[in-house]
Amino acid sequence: MLRVKRLPIDTYPDNTAFILRRSDGYSAEQFQALRKIRVTGDSCEILATLAVVDDDKIIGNGEIGLGEQAFRRLGLPEGAEVEIAQARRPASLEFVRRKIDGDSLGEAEIGAVIRDIANYRYSPMEIGAFLVACASFMSTQETLALTRAMLDVGSRLSWDSPLVVDKHCIGGIPGNRTSMIVVPIVAAHGLICPKTSSRAITSPCGTADVMEVLAQVDLSSEQMSSIVKKENAVLAWGGRMNLSPADDVLISVERPLRLDQFEQMVASIISKKVAAGSTHLVIDIPVGPTAKVRTQGDAVRLRKLFEYVARHMGLVTKIVFTDGSQPVGRGVGPVLEARDVMAVLRNEPDAPEDLRDHAVALAGHMLDFDPALEGGKGYSRALELLASGEALAAMERLIDAQGRNPAKPELGRLRREVEATKAGTVTSIDCERIARIARHAGAPMDQGAGIDLLHKVGSTVREGDALYRIYANSATGMGFACEFAGEGSGYEIG
Amino acid sequence: MLRVKRLPIDTYPDNTAFILRRSDGYSAEQFQALRKIRVTGDSCEILATLAVVDDDKIIGNGEIGLGEQAFRRLGLPEGAEVEIAQARRPASLEFVRRKIDGDSLGEAEIGAVIRDIANYRYSPMEIGAFLVACASFMSTQETLALTRAMLDVGSRLSWDSPLVVDKHCIGGIPGNRTSMIVVPIVAAHGLICPKTSSRAITSPCGTADVMEVLAQVDLSSEQMSSIVKKENAVLAWGGRMNLSPADDVLISVERPLRLDQFEQMVASIISKKVAAGSTHLVIDIPVGPTAKVRTQGDAVRLRKLFEYVARHMGLVTKIVFTDGSQPVGRGVGPVLEARDVMAVLRNEPDAPEDLRDHAVALAGHMLDFDPALEGGKGYSRALELLASGEALAAMERLIDAQGRNPAKPELGRLRREVEATKAGTVTSIDCERIARIARHAGAPMDQGAGIDLLHKVGSTVREGDALYRIYANSATGMGFACEFAGEGSGYEIG
Repeated sequence: MLRVKRLPIDTYPDNTAFILRRSDGYSAEQFQALRKIRVTGDSCEILATLAVVDDDKIIGNGEIGLGEQAFRRLGLPEGAEVEIAQARRPASLEFVRRKIDGDSLGEAEIGAVIRDIANYRYSPMEIGAFLVACASFMSTQETLALTRAMLDVGSRLSWDSPLVVDKHCIGGIPGNRTSMIVVPIVAAHGLICPKTSSRAITSPCGTADVMEVLAQVDLSSEQMSSIVKKENAVLAWGGRMNLSPADDVLISVERPLRLDQFEQMVASIISKKVAAGSTHLVIDIPVGPTAKVRTQGDAVRLRKLFEYVARHMGLVTKIVFTDGSQPVGRGVGPVLEARDVMAVLRNEPDAPEDLRDHAVALAGHMLDFDPALEGGKGYSRALELLASGEALAAMERLIDAQGRNPAKPELGRLRREVEATKAGTVTSIDCERIARIARHAGAPMDQGAGIDLLHKVGSTVREGDALYRIYANSATGMGFACEFAGEGSGYEIG
Repeated sequence: MLRVKRLPIDTYPDNTAFILRRSDGYSAEQFQALRKIRVTGDSCEILATLAVVDDDKIIGNGEIGLGEQAFRRLGLPEGAEVEIAQARRPASLEFVRRKIDGDSLGEAEIGAVIRDIANYRYSPMEIGAFLVACASFMSTQETLALTRAMLDVGSRLSWDSPLVVDKHCIGGIPGNRTSMIVVPIVAAHGLICPKTSSRAITSPCGTADVMEVLAQVDLSSEQMSSIVKKENAVLAWGGRMNLSPADDVLISVERPLRLDQFEQMVASIISKKVAAGSTHLVIDIPVGPTAKVRTQGDAVRLRKLFEYVARHMGLVTKIVFTDGSQPVGRGVGPVLEARDVMAVLRNEPDAPEDLRDHAVALAGHMLDFDPALEGGKGYSRALELLASGEALAAMERLIDAQGRNPAKPELGRLRREVEATKAGTVTSIDCERIARIARHAGAPMDQGAGIDLLHKVGSTVREGDALYRIYANSATGMGFACEFAGEGSGYEIG
């Protein structure tokens, strides 16, 4: 028996346990570093990676140190007695191994893997192995099984309505912040739209990151319910809702590995939307040479996969291919994108047109789900709600209901412009490159970091004209961003 | 600038750096946990995973704590000044990503990945992603490129002889400890055979683990050279020689993930053999229903891959398919296998016949490389050297030259027999299951742990007869092994 000691060491997302090398009753051989151990207390258990300590000032004999993450997950107080044992490999790792060998897995097998992942029984390395093995080949059946498994391990929200609409964009296009315009429009119309969004995975920011500039997004299910009851809608971060605990763990590995596979994307999105209680979903798939989806063929393959999985999960979908040839709007990064969104909602004359047009089109598709609006009338209704200021009013009410951010985050203090090296017309802007420069600058962690695009495709520039401005608050971030932009601005001028 | 402090915390194989959350000049946002940082000192640099500490008794303001692994790899004294920065992703991770997407990689790309891996720039998760991506598909060209890349990042040994023989078994068959019989035979004949072996990867023990029961195996290149000069041969652990630093890192991930792909196996073996200075190599591929290679088709595929890569690396090979239908010999585990090997070399009447026959056949193939022995005479020469005691004498000299182990490790104190649940004839023994039971018992870390097979295929047993005896020194290990054996003994009786 060892006594739990909370060690103020944060090793997120890993559970780490610290034990003295010469702790009574345990030999060094038995508990080598990197060996996983099982820590068992009264009716609770976690797996942890073991760090072996040679200094009894850090951890004493008879004690087990748990890092912040492990301490929280075990849920016992300091001094509680636990037993440790060499962890048995989760049995489901055999299925991962079979997947690596090229087998297809059945529903029970995928379910077992996902349950173990959601219960933190896999190391990041093991999760990575599962994801990469799935990336090499995954059948539609497996994708459906993965979706069901992810739904099964999470909580579900339910809304007292036969029509709960939602939209989702698969991402990849910087500045494409339509949700924050679409949701107030459909809410103003009277549809129920409890939108949960993620934070950025591989992009410089997600909708939750941008909404957070304006309002609280870290809401409980109860807060969400009461806001939806009053305002028809909400724009919340989905992570708090435990809608897909497995996905949250998967993302912690997908992010550093920059994995973004169709099958995992479909399973993640559909499981979360069903868990959030949506019945009707518009999915936006931008297609373009530097977007996530680059060819018509890939777009169709992805659409079919979405339709197959959604149909079997009882979700009505409308899938829209949109122009993903360049960033949407001007700003890229939380503060900058919030600025663009509000400019559209406020009908400001210089609000980015492409962002407005794109958002209105999507809102139209969502309004078309309303049986009261006969076929195709959604679009004009959406335009009307935006122009009249009803959408803006709905957004302001949403911000107040969620809790307006008193901090008013500002643009980064450090600014640098990237200039055209020759005169001509902008012929293309590389979405991936712009996204990576904005990430290097510090977005989304640094809310004020990002890129403000001063020219878009078709614009005429002179040599030395500023193409875009980089914002950052840290010199390191600005350094990385400029270095990276120096290797290639992302703009082509012809 | 931060001052290096050595923290007595072992997180092998990860580099871990500990920093106070509120350290001057750094914000929590900049250095979140799991973020990788670059630690740069005077002409040296490492990447490390960051752990954020909230207690200045563990690490003070202005200090950076380096775990044992990281401290050793950075190579600076305590108090040395270093700078830290958010690590830029190794550029070669883009190639890993492309491999995940299904691309084939070129020689320069694989070279870049392997250099970064050998320089500890990848996390275990990233290494796992590379390995699993390669497991899904790898061309022969890529396998050759991987072999060259692994050779290029390591040291090489050279021997003053045009004929340097070696043998390698791909493993998977418990108890198949032929090297320790073959090497003394060919050394007694006068061939140069500087054998480097690995420790167990996924098996209950490797040749280095077994040889270590008898003698020192952790030898420097210099020690190895002087032993080979005197004794023609050596039986050393290859890890110390830095022959394939990349492979050592890869193995640290392959082991917990239990990866064992043909392509990685071929690259690992051929690069190490070339690095060790071998010119002629016998490769033993056991084929059987529970071996690593299960069908004739797979065996042929693997042989062709070995031949292709070896030919391009200038290595002469002779590839032998052997019977991998059941374990070889009786003991499985370091002490038990050392016992069997010595019984064969001593010509003891009850020495395991299958181990002897197998070893003599392989030694014969190696002796056939000697131009002085005309075609096919190797086999009878091998028999002669074993029967005459010359091989035993060579082994005893080798043990003395390497440094006889004064400890004489003994069999595990804890013993349990697994009994036949019915009478009949043993029709098969599952190699994989026997190996896993022996690993659960504690082999190879616990040298005395393992399994002693009391019956082999074809043996007649009564109900209640002991099929095998499990040895262990830890109650936990014995518990796991018995539990696992209880789920299936690995024996079929018909």
